[in-house]
Amino acid sequence: MGAQPTVLDVALAAGVSRQTVSNVLNAPEMVRQGTRERVEAAILDLGYRPHASARRLRTQKSSTIGIRLDPITTDGISGSILDRFLHALTEQADRKNLRVLLFTAAGPEDEIAQFGRLSDGADVDAFVLTSTFHGDPRTEWLIERGQSFVTFGRPWGIDDMADPEHLWVDVDGRHGLREATTHLLAGGARRIGFLGWPTGSGTGDDRRLGWLEAMRSDSGLSADELAVLEVAAEDGVNFGAEAMRRLELAAGTLDAVVCTSDSLALGALMATAGRLPVIGYDNTPVAASIGFSSVEQPLDEVATGVLDLLTGAHGGRVTTETSASDPRHRMVAPRLVVRDGPSVIAAAR
Amino acid sequence: MGAQPTVLDVALAAGVSRQTVSNVLNAPEMVRQGTRERVEAAILDLGYRPHASARRLRTQKSSTIGIRLDPITTDGISGSILDRFLHALTEQADRKNLRVLLFTAAGPEDEIAQFGRLSDGADVDAFVLTSTFHGDPRTEWLIERGQSFVTFGRPWGIDDMADPEHLWVDVDGRHGLREATTHLLAGGARRIGFLGWPTGSGTGDDRRLGWLEAMRSDSGLSADELAVLEVAAEDGVNFGAEAMRRLELAAGTLDAVVCTSDSLALGALMATAGRLPVIGYDNTPVAASIGFSSVEQPLDEVATGVLDLLTGAHGGRVTTETSASDPRHRMVAPRLVVRDGPSVIAAAR
Repeated sequence: MGAQPTVLDVALAAGVSRQTVSNVLNAPEMVRQGTRERVEAAILDLGYRPHASARRLRTQKSSTIGIRLDPITTDGISGSILDRFLHALTEQADRKNLRVLLFTAAGPEDEIAQFGRLSDGADVDAFVLTSTFHGDPRTEWLIERGQSFVTFGRPWGIDDMADPEHLWVDVDGRHGLREATTHLLAGGARRIGFLGWPTGSGTGDDRRLGWLEAMRSDSGLSADELAVLEVAAEDGVNFGAEAMRRLELAAGTLDAVVCTSDSLALGALMATAGRLPVIGYDNTPVAASIGFSSVEQPLDEVATGVLDLLTGAHGGRVTTETSASDPRHRMVAPRLVVRDGPSVIAAAR
Repeated sequence: MGAQPTVLDVALAAGVSRQTVSNVLNAPEMVRQGTRERVEAAILDLGYRPHASARRLRTQKSSTIGIRLDPITTDGISGSILDRFLHALTEQADRKNLRVLLFTAAGPEDEIAQFGRLSDGADVDAFVLTSTFHGDPRTEWLIERGQSFVTFGRPWGIDDMADPEHLWVDVDGRHGLREATTHLLAGGARRIGFLGWPTGSGTGDDRRLGWLEAMRSDSGLSADELAVLEVAAEDGVNFGAEAMRRLELAAGTLDAVVCTSDSLALGALMATAGRLPVIGYDNTPVAASIGFSSVEQPLDEVATGVLDLLTGAHGGRVTTETSASDPRHRMVAPRLVVRDGPSVIAAAR
């Protein structure tokens, strides 16, 4: 055992799961009395102190937030969203007299090593994580160490969404694509195609549901008719163009297309020379420059949420149940930015 | 006078310019003996200590570099270059156990206020500046304070290029556009147009010279014939498309176009539906995705240069003359990334 006992140590001593210890600390009314008393005894016994560093962030004069700078992707169109989040976060942190320290990491294990170095050296008081994924080992590690952190991105596992020790802010992509699809349906489009990523990515699957829900509810198309309206492609402009051609072959006439990303949307636009309305996701500079509609993530609001949670402005309130309205978990709604379509492509035809 | 005397205090006491004091400190053999002795006396008199913080960066175990995160531009296509520089810088700083601290500022004066706050609070040991411009007050302020810094971007004033106190790394954009133009000429193009920014921006004017030099040398066209081959536009895809139409009206048949930015290049491509070879600048994700040639800034090399200068790995060598080979001023050559042209646009015609 290390110098300071962890949640896991308490769990082992009390013979319960880590989640149960976490519940005793954060939402004791969720735990049966006998179990709760066993955990509380183990906590006293071991001298476990929850969230020492979280308290530090709220009281120190000039605290420092560590954030990993994600690697540049080959197709940097959609990747720029994290750079824009970083801008929003840094601007707001400056106003709160919080510092933002950058680091890089080659992967999750390397990022965890950086967490250790930066918190041991007292360089960083809390971490902000981006790009959460299924079975993310980073949050587990931070929770074990009682290290203060907030993720931009929900935990992608049904049970974990309500974990009271995992503070997160995320954008409701499903809502965004539902709104985009509904907008096209309201404008008279009926056969609206969907260009998405291969199944398995939390964000991609979630956004697809938004298209599907709107189509089921308002398109009047059958499940079989809907099935030919969607194709999957890796992210990228050329993949999007290729997928768009496949979609047109399989689906025949289309009225419009919604996409999981602006990269795919740009590909779809190029492949159709602007014949169809196309809506992308992320409202990147490319969407703004070329002039197509896109779902915008409200990154200022995400940054505000992240800093609120980090600095305890949510009041550290313990709710009786961990629901979507739990202040430790904040889902923000994106908004559809409607544009006329790419006049430059149209003029060039 | 503040607690610590500045270069300006020494200059006033010795009755010389700040530049002369700087020369005495960094390249004394450039200064006449009488002047040198007067300055040296003033330095002793006032107890001036040059570059206290620069020395600190080289000896401290874990030093911190402050860098301003530039505001997101509306058309973020070319702006992303600074985010990519930040990535390269952070990755390399990590390996040297240097920390990168971010801040934001609404303008040069606000950035100077941030310099003061961050260096007074000992949060930051040295600064990296980007987007230098004519009459930049930031570098002047840092030099006066003896604060360690390096700029990505040369000082845009003829006299300042060789200032031994202003360490800088820059990319030779003129060389880049000369190479791009020469590449097109070698491929048989002769009437090569130029889409650039309005005169007055250091980088824009410099890149234009590269096109002009190559055309003068190898196109066989007269000065009058060259004059109709260039147009200026504000940066942006739509501005680029509009400028491209103006250029075709004024110049008639063109063989190819080179541009000061990828935003302008994308506009030119859209306006001509891929009829002409177009070369952009910055090799942004947009150029890679759509598939047009572009001049790439070697940002890894720039980051290496910046860190070398900050940590004194250039050896602090004093040269007898401040020339282009001065290790304190590093100009790196960009490289042309040649691509076949936008297959997606061509397929869509």
